[in-house]
Amino acid sequence: MVSKNQIKLITGLVQKKYRKQHRLFFAEGVKVIEELLHSDFELEHVFHTKPMFVNVPEHKKVSVSESELKKISALTTPNDCLAVFRIPEEKPVAPGGLVLALDDIRDPGNLGTIIRLCDWFGISQIICSEQTVDVYNPKVVQATMGSIGRVNISYLDLESYLSQSGTAVFGTFMEGDNIYKEALPTEGIIVLGNEANGISKSIEGLVTKKISIPRFGNLQLTESLNVATATAIVLSEFKRNA
Amino acid sequence: MVSKNQIKLITGLVQKKYRKQHRLFFAEGVKVIEELLHSDFELEHVFHTKPMFVNVPEHKKVSVSESELKKISALTTPNDCLAVFRIPEEKPVAPGGLVLALDDIRDPGNLGTIIRLCDWFGISQIICSEQTVDVYNPKVVQATMGSIGRVNISYLDLESYLSQSGTAVFGTFMEGDNIYKEALPTEGIIVLGNEANGISKSIEGLVTKKISIPRFGNLQLTESLNVATATAIVLSEFKRNA
Repeated sequence: MVSKNQIKLITGLVQKKYRKQHRLFFAEGVKVIEELLHSDFELEHVFHTKPMFVNVPEHKKVSVSESELKKISALTTPNDCLAVFRIPEEKPVAPGGLVLALDDIRDPGNLGTIIRLCDWFGISQIICSEQTVDVYNPKVVQATMGSIGRVNISYLDLESYLSQSGTAVFGTFMEGDNIYKEALPTEGIIVLGNEANGISKSIEGLVTKKISIPRFGNLQLTESLNVATATAIVLSEFKRNA
Repeated sequence: MVSKNQIKLITGLVQKKYRKQHRLFFAEGVKVIEELLHSDFELEHVFHTKPMFVNVPEHKKVSVSESELKKISALTTPNDCLAVFRIPEEKPVAPGGLVLALDDIRDPGNLGTIIRLCDWFGISQIICSEQTVDVYNPKVVQATMGSIGRVNISYLDLESYLSQSGTAVFGTFMEGDNIYKEALPTEGIIVLGNEANGISKSIEGLVTKKISIPRFGNLQLTESLNVATATAIVLSEFKRNA
């Protein structure tokens, strides 16, 4: 049974200001929730329509009907469970190795996919400009498939961070050098830009090495790559000889 | 001004059976529509809320209000234009070079992203199992960003096609050989599998070379890659030395 106050609280968590105020976020579906339970996230409550999560203490479990779940879910077709977790304190940036920097990524699905890619390629630190979509946005959490617990994500003033980083800063640009022909290091920062505008002018000035993914299609009309697929290709190139 | 019959027709086109019956599909937004106008697609009508598309003959243009556009749009936040195009006759499969084969891709966004990737990497032929999501699904069309006009997409019995292809058939599997260490050919078929189940058993038997994208993350829990990002990495590897 879910109370009116709980419904109000959870549905509010789709908004960043309420997530910030309550220091809570939620995730849906057994796969994502299981992964988060195996990470450092502290569970508040899990709402479930059938018996599941045998290792979760009873006082954190709330049995609900399907129609109750529908009231708290952010999905058009709700799953069979939804869990509320505490938002942890942001950990300090862990430099060293390869770091991904996101310059105003706005689409939650893209950020989620990028986090999942970092997890796959063993990138443990992402730094995001303050305008980048919030990592605890429910759509981001779903798209990460739970890998959110294994990558450290920091929001900061990207321009000031990069200008003080003292390391190589890579960025993808149409006119950059062919990424397939470059000797890529195992340390450095890789900047990916906004979906519509790419890397902003102020950040471009801090990029020490411009790279590009060559286009093999014939027509000039070919659209640029989506930022998540570009990230996949760039990370694969940096890691393939590692 | 959009008529009641037009509203009924266009909103029906979100369903495959009505697209098939009328041989029509639609696209939204000036960027995608412009790309389709530059391809071989035959325009039926374009509905627009402000003057645009100066090269389109007047009798194909319908000026509408924003509230009228909302009635025909499939987007939660409609753009400023929507265009209806004829679905062309399916062209015969053009073998040779690299061909992508999709074994039951169900997510429209994934198919759209994969088409866009093929366009980028100069793959001009995609073959899809009959269960793969329809390429004229509005969400697929949007996600292709217009590159749908530059890649030939054929729906067929994948098992029977592959068994008669007489060429190398690559497929991604967890236990496959490290893709980064393989000498990859410039001809062959690359199979990508369903989002939840991967490549089906019957198709697996027809794969002549199993490959895998190595995982660099530390934890066993790391989820598999999303099929669109896996496609990005695989195509990049096949093409990087081309």
